Amino acid sequence: MAAVAVVQGASRGLGLAFCRHILLHRPSAALVATCRRPSGAATWRAVGAGNPGRVTVPAAGRGPAGGRQGGGGPRSGKRSGRADLVVNCSATLHPSGKGETSLRDVSAEDVMATLTTNSVGPLLMAKYFCPLLQRGGGKFGQQHPEKAKQHSGILINMTARVGSIGDNVLGGWYSYRMSKAALNMATKNLSIELGRNRQKVVCVSLHPGTVDTDLSRPYHKNVPKNKLFSADYSVQCLMSIIDRLNIDKTGKAYAWDGSEIPW
Amino acid sequence: MAAVAVVQGASRGLGLAFCRHILLHRPSAALVATCRRPSGAATWRAVGAGNPGRVTVPAAGRGPAGGRQGGGGPRSGKRSGRADLVVNCSATLHPSGKGETSLRDVSAEDVMATLTTNSVGPLLMAKYFCPLLQRGGGKFGQQHPEKAKQHSGILINMTARVGSIGDNVLGGWYSYRMSKAALNMATKNLSIELGRNRQKVVCVSLHPGTVDTDLSRPYHKNVPKNKLFSADYSVQCLMSIIDRLNIDKTGKAYAWDGSEIPW
Repeated sequence: MAAVAVVQGASRGLGLAFCRHILLHRPSAALVATCRRPSGAATWRAVGAGNPGRVTVPAAGRGPAGGRQGGGGPRSGKRSGRADLVVNCSATLHPSGKGETSLRDVSAEDVMATLTTNSVGPLLMAKYFCPLLQRGGGKFGQQHPEKAKQHSGILINMTARVGSIGDNVLGGWYSYRMSKAALNMATKNLSIELGRNRQKVVCVSLHPGTVDTDLSRPYHKNVPKNKLFSADYSVQCLMSIIDRLNIDKTGKAYAWDGSEIPW
Repeated sequence: MAAVAVVQGASRGLGLAFCRHILLHRPSAALVATCRRPSGAATWRAVGAGNPGRVTVPAAGRGPAGGRQGGGGPRSGKRSGRADLVVNCSATLHPSGKGETSLRDVSAEDVMATLTTNSVGPLLMAKYFCPLLQRGGGKFGQQHPEKAKQHSGILINMTARVGSIGDNVLGGWYSYRMSKAALNMATKNLSIELGRNRQKVVCVSLHPGTVDTDLSRPYHKNVPKNKLFSADYSVQCLMSIIDRLNIDKTGKAYAWDGSEIPW
């Protein structure tokens, strides 16, 4: 049975880097890559085209774009499929592209839009993909030596250090911070619910560091050069954490260097 | 200068109990009581009628109900008013009245509705009332002995222990837990932004215990009798915490017994 990885938000940034990494380093793995606008994801399609037969791209989101490349899709997967790894990558900093610097910038609409993408979206992914993860073969992570503690799948929510309430000393970025705190709560809740079953799913939040993506671009000038990672480097670090996950490590938030992040 | 307290969600439950407590125990304080449907809040109006001249009831929320009793209102207050205490009490457990027992019960619409009431609403209250708190006279709390650390106002967000990620061992209640985690992040962010200024505002989250209100009613049979508080008793405990707040205690979550709650 080949490993199956699902990457949500696969068209660019970290999601695209996860796809590249998995295709390159897990040559037997099948990949399901979801994004809101698959037809616009030229870079992504080029990656897929270079790996014929290994990649499925169902359309995610509610839009009418709904194009499919290859067979399958979330609905058919939901009934019969399985997954060993689901990575939720989609995120927005703020609809304007810049986080709020103060309360003055806060608007209900922008907070709601950010919560929708960053907190509610990944929770719905978990809802619809958890049956697949519960049918997985545990092909990612490092299996627990005790058989009763072995996992069937791994769910990753991409968080951020600024989503840590305890670590927050600068303030600002209301929408983004609140959305990632809510997402971290979802991770914790999921780890409890999906860790109880016989088919255990490991659920963690991961912080990728400051990565050179569209989301972080407006802030690059403030980041020391050795702290600004390429998406590929960040994913390499994150995959080495994922490779060591087991059920004992579920329900936590980890940074790219493996250190635990407080809530 | 008389103390001014603003209670949001004043028509019932904890909000109503805060109003009763302040009118009874702070006889010189003026009270601004907001709720979404003031015309339907019969109990509340009886309290107001028993304290002529002390109470203003502007209509909050977007509804057309908009009735006013007494003068003022948030708009006039925003320009020229001041406040010493703002308490955000409105909350919903879930649109259905019952928290999700598992991922199966999660719906995007319900999560969003809960986040709107429990996280976004209090943040907007903070946005619009923080100028009033910055003009407050620091008449609630216990002033810091150092003059430079004295506060002008206090902002209370009503949280819940189940909103603590670190304390979460049971899972479930996705919408409510996520909304309170997001609210706790808002509290932390607000404490940073509003603690920097010369006119300092103390911002904390408070957990009222399990209180006999409409929100908790479906769960009373599971609560030991000595752990189910009346709203009046809970508010008495919370006001004794508020009476001891100063800027050194800002940016934290406290339970009704004064103990700090982890994030």
